[in-house]
Formats: sequence, structure tokens, C-alpha cells
Amino acid sequence: MKIVIINSGSSSIKYQLISMPANEVICSGMIDRIGLETSNLTYVTDTTKLEENMPIANHKIGLEKIAQLLLDETVGVITSTAEIDAVGHRVVHGGSAFSNTVIITAAVKDKIRQLFELAPLHNPANLEGINVAEGIFSSAQQVAVFDTAFHQTIPVVAHKYAIPNYLLTENKIRVYGFHGTSHKYVSENAIQYLKQNSLNKGSRIITIHLGNGCSMTAIKDGKSIDHTLGFGPMNGLIMGTRSGDVDQSVIFYLVNTLGYSLEAVNTMLQKQSGMLGLTGYSDLRDIEANAENGNADCQLALAMNAYRIKKYIGSYTAVLNGLDAIIFTAGIGENSSYIRKLVCTDMDYFGIKLDASKNEIRSKEIREINTEDSKTKILVIPTNEEIEIANQVFELLTT
Amino acid sequence: MKIVIINSGSSSIKYQLISMPANEVICSGMIDRIGLETSNLTYVTDTTKLEENMPIANHKIGLEKIAQLLLDETVGVITSTAEIDAVGHRVVHGGSAFSNTVIITAAVKDKIRQLFELAPLHNPANLEGINVAEGIFSSAQQVAVFDTAFHQTIPVVAHKYAIPNYLLTENKIRVYGFHGTSHKYVSENAIQYLKQNSLNKGSRIITIHLGNGCSMTAIKDGKSIDHTLGFGPMNGLIMGTRSGDVDQSVIFYLVNTLGYSLEAVNTMLQKQSGMLGLTGYSDLRDIEANAENGNADCQLALAMNAYRIKKYIGSYTAVLNGLDAIIFTAGIGENSSYIRKLVCTDMDYFGIKLDASKNEIRSKEIREINTEDSKTKILVIPTNEEIEIANQVFELLTT
Repeated sequence: MKIVIINSGSSSIKYQLISMPANEVICSGMIDRIGLETSNLTYVTDTTKLEENMPIANHKIGLEKIAQLLLDETVGVITSTAEIDAVGHRVVHGGSAFSNTVIITAAVKDKIRQLFELAPLHNPANLEGINVAEGIFSSAQQVAVFDTAFHQTIPVVAHKYAIPNYLLTENKIRVYGFHGTSHKYVSENAIQYLKQNSLNKGSRIITIHLGNGCSMTAIKDGKSIDHTLGFGPMNGLIMGTRSGDVDQSVIFYLVNTLGYSLEAVNTMLQKQSGMLGLTGYSDLRDIEANAENGNADCQLALAMNAYRIKKYIGSYTAVLNGLDAIIFTAGIGENSSYIRKLVCTDMDYFGIKLDASKNEIRSKEIREINTEDSKTKILVIPTNEEIEIANQVFELLTT
Repeated sequence: MKIVIINSGSSSIKYQLISMPANEVICSGMIDRIGLETSNLTYVTDTTKLEENMPIANHKIGLEKIAQLLLDETVGVITSTAEIDAVGHRVVHGGSAFSNTVIITAAVKDKIRQLFELAPLHNPANLEGINVAEGIFSSAQQVAVFDTAFHQTIPVVAHKYAIPNYLLTENKIRVYGFHGTSHKYVSENAIQYLKQNSLNKGSRIITIHLGNGCSMTAIKDGKSIDHTLGFGPMNGLIMGTRSGDVDQSVIFYLVNTLGYSLEAVNTMLQKQSGMLGLTGYSDLRDIEANAENGNADCQLALAMNAYRIKKYIGSYTAVLNGLDAIIFTAGIGENSSYIRKLVCTDMDYFGIKLDASKNEIRSKEIREINTEDSKTKILVIPTNEEIEIANQVFELLTT
């Protein structure tokens, strides 16, 4: 089964063609800056690595360009779009409607549309990708995989806010959670790893996804039971440009006393805060390099970042009433030994003991970086949202 | 030394006359509904219990009335205001300026005034109380005790938000913390209790203040190192009418998508949320009674309340890297065995084991309610902010 995975953002499309059940990536690439004068397109197969700059006006033209490359006589990997059995679409917000991967129907598209107001930056782009893919890969099954779905198991005690009840019942304001595909993928890998190594039953784990966005999930018996991101994707951990948790009093003070517009505060908390607001840099590699050279702002920002993660490890250990493993994943989680070290220092009450030399090893494999006597396992597991989406599509269509 | 303790709210004055160093309360009482047609005044001594309804137009008239009662031929306890050595004023917000109790000077009053914008409901009333008391008790030392002072030891890694740096340096937006007098009082009592009982050195404790407002403090070696309330007194734990922590996305959604005014959202999060928003009741006794009678909203609200407290116990155990004791205090903390039970259930990973029968004992004394084999002590310690203020005033003036 050949599955095209499409992850449409507001001005980008990431795509992969994956052969299942082999999990073989036949080609992958992305288009970004859609709508601007020079969009950037990449296309990578085992034998080809293309990069082009050209104007790509919209998602339709972008997806058509991708289809052309897939079919291309020289660099192509298929001879007809009919070879594509399914298209798996990442959809950011599934609201309360979707707790599972679904075949896309008119009714499903209606629901994705109804959720526009909950994810105004993401869902419209996701639906646009679906509409365009239906035209191009017309014989393929279109399938939606929701970022929020994995978190639908979060119980009401954790997903409800302490605000008037009608805001949940009528307006659906609750914790939805995000990065669900990643948390699901790495948690399943972690549980399998722990079982294979007979280390423990791995029923109480915490996944720490540190990428462009950052979030953590408390996972009990494979199910998400709590998560740092809530109704929208801006609270919880400190991110590249997002503040994470902030006292709501600050918002009222900025508007009422300091005279900011609410829009300016929203923009500030999403785009000018987090590591950027604290250091002037949003790329963690710059921040780490500067911290190592003695930049106090960078040192403090990294310490704050790790402090927040530690606090959530504590929180989630409380709601799990135990801790078998913590798992670092995504760009920063997989690559920053610096952050991992800060997080794992002085955490021996939680049975967390980092092996300093194992922590420095760079690898694309699942690896254990705790000391031999660490009660809690510390794992680094590379995430792969595209493979997870392909797995879910394959499972849905074959069972 | 005779000390009058004054706690002025926007429409109330709570007062006590305390003889030091004996900690003897000579009289106590309060006036509320100041400015309304019928204010209510109470005055209690060992031999007298007065309650009067009368119009009291402002704080000046209220404090004069209190002074009249203190001096009254029949029910009075002093013969001249000159007998009063000091007046201790509770001041809610000391900002970054005050980390200790201070004798009130013109400069101190200026700083309290400069902090009006950070505590618009409290500091103006506190300053008004000071001004009036200076006139009435003109020979007494006027002393300010700040609610925020105990939390000035919270390190920058915990008191800074991940927002642009200038908001801290120029606008002083940071975690200040509140209920400091209570957290200080009960933590000192807890540490003394733990030492006397040779249980452990008590260097890592968590105080849980559950009253009208609710907050928790992580205390290491007697010092506050983290706290659930932040810049203002509305985040963190679920309170009677305040939401506690809520994803900031919710605020933007309520305004931008649902059309609320920002003022309406602020009012909702402070006055229509928390236990009231979840159940329709703001008095915990009503909520517990209804929960016991099967009211699902009340059961859920209590579960959510306890869940939030559990999470912070976990967080603070992480930043303390250990846990010697948790301490329940204030109206709900001292009296609700129901909440204490919910919080302490399934917390054995943290060495927390509640003794169910000890938990039901009602008392005004410090008491230990954990099982014999509980690694972490669970204490109930009645708070007494007035005695704490008197102690601080006495200490300041005699050393």
C-alpha cells in the first residue's frame, strides 16, 4: 500500500510517500513560503535530491507540483496517481468530535470546518490540503489523523477548566492537547522498549516533546491522561517564541494598566515570548552556545525552560502516582544534551539519574541515557509523525 | 507591648489588640460593609461580645469607632490611646521594594502608593488604614507587614515569566506571591513541630493555604522558593470564585470569537469561576454536603480542586527534590477532611499516607494526620495572620 502523507500548514506543505507495511519512505520533501514570490520546494528520494525556488501561489498549485514530481519520467517514483492507495492528512484540531483516525467524508470535512475557530491557523490549511488532494489523488482513500485524538482519553478532572460550566457544555472550552501523533508514537515505542528489556511494565511514563512547539504528556497504560497544552497551543512549557504558562493577571495588567491592545498581547505571548523574549534568540543552538560563553540571559532562559519541565515531571508523577520512564523527543529533546542534563539534575527523589556520557551520544536510535542504578528510565526516542500517520492510515484501511 | 493589628480591605477593617510577647489577644473584631447604609461592627473581649449595625461612611469613622470601644468606660480595654505602642498594618502588595516588615515613614507610604496599580483592590485600602491610624494612635509606631514579603526569596528562575525581558526590568511583572504571612506562620510552626518530634529536619515542606483565597508554597530551609499565585492573586489553585490556572488561549477566544469584553472575562475569572462556576455554590460546606448526596457537579469540582493541589505537590516536590511534610491550613485546609482525603489519596509514591481517623479529628491545635509509616508527614496547622503580624512588629521594635 502506497500512502502519501500530507501536513499542510498555513504557508507550507510537508509530504512523504510511504510504502506500507514496510514503513519504507519512497520520497519526502516540503514546500514553504506558499503565496510569496519565491517558494522553496524540496524533493528527496533514495537517488535524487532536488531543491527549487519558484513562485507557488497556493496549496493547489503546490500539491500539483508535488504530484508532477512523483510522476516525473526522470526523478519520479510512480507512473500514475492511481498507484496511490491512500492520502493521510494531518489535521491539527479534531475537537471533541474525533478520538480516532477517520476516512474523510463530506461530514468529516464539515466538522473540520466547524473547528476552524478553535484552530484558525491550522485547520483551514488542513482542509485546503484535503480538498486539493481529493482532486489530484482521486482514486485514493483520504484519511484524517488528528493531533488532538491521542488526548481524547484525558479524563474530565484534567481536561475541564474551573470556569462556568456552560463554557464546556456549550462552547467546548476544555483541554484538547496537541502533538498527539508524536506523543503516541514515542510512547508506544517506549512501552515496547521497556517490555523488551524487561525493565518494568512501563505503565507510567511521561513524554517530553521539545521541538518548535513543546509539550509533555502523562501516559498511563498507554493512554494520555494529562497534557501541558490546553485549549490552544500556547501554554505549558516555555517554547521558542511562545510563553507557555503565564498568570492571566499579566494579560489584564498589560491591557488595562499599560495600555496594550489585546491583539498585541496575543501576538507578544505567541511570537515574541519564550526563549526569544528571554534571550533575543529563538534557535536553541544559538542560545546554548551563548550560554556556554557566559551570556547570563541565555543561561537563565535555559534554566527556566528546564525548571518548567521539572515541575511538570513532578505534577505528572503525582497524577500517575509513580514513574517508570521519562522520554525526550523531537528536535530539541533528541539533540540537546544541555537541556536534558538541566532537567535531570537534582531529580533523584524521582529516581531520575542521568548518565552524563550516555547523554552526550548522538544517534537516530532509541537509547537509554540513565545510569545503571536509576530507578526511572530516561529514554531518547526520535519521533516520526509521518510514519505514525502512515501506520494509522494503514491500520484503519486494513482492519 | 500593646499592638493593634489592622487589616483594611476595600470595605472592611479587621482588628485585634494583642499584648506581646505573651501573644495574648485582648480584643478583636471587624467592621464590614463600610460605606453602605448598615455596616456591621463586632467587638470581642474575654468578657464582652458586641455586635452593632450602624452606618459607617468610611475607614476613618470606622477606626475612630474602634478606638472609642477600646477606650469605653464599660467595655474598653485601655484608658488612653497612648497605651498602644504600635500598630501593625497588613499591606497586601510590597512589590519588589519590601522583603521585610518596616516602620512606616513618608517614603514607605510613597512606595505603597506606587504599588496601587499592582494591587488596586487592596493597597489603597491598606494605605487609608495607615493614614487614619496615624491620626488616632499618634504616639504609636506604625509598622507595615507585607503579604508578598515572605516570597521575596523566590529565585528568578521561578519568579520570572517567559515574556520579553523588559516587562520584568521596566514593568516589574513577575511572580510576587500572596498569603505570605500565613505561609510564614504555619511553615515556622511546622518546622518547629518537626524538630521537636525529631521526625526529620523538615527542610523541604509544602504549605497548602485553603481559605477564601488558596495558594501553596514550596519552602526549603524555611524560605519560600516557589508559590502558586503569581503577579496577581487569581492563578494557581481553584478557589471559591477564582479559576486558578487557565490556558491564556481561553481569554483570547472568549474575547475574539465569543465576543466577551475583556472586563467581562476578568470579572468572570475572578468572581464567577472556581467552585462557584463549577457547582453554583461558593461555600465549600454546601458543596461537600451536595457531593455526599450525589451531586455530580459538586463531586467533580471537589475532585478537580484536589487534583490541582496534587499536581502542585508533585511540582514542588520536584523543585525541592524531596518532601518532608505537607501542611494544610486556613479555613478549608483546617476544617475540610473531605478535601484533605482527596488530596492524599493515591499519593504513596510521595510517601504520603493519610490516617483516615486522625483526618476526621477537629481541633484548634497543630496535629499530625498521617499514618505511623508515612514517610512524609501530613500536618494540619491553624494559621493566625494577626499573631504573625504582632510577632513581626514586636521583633522589629525590640531587636
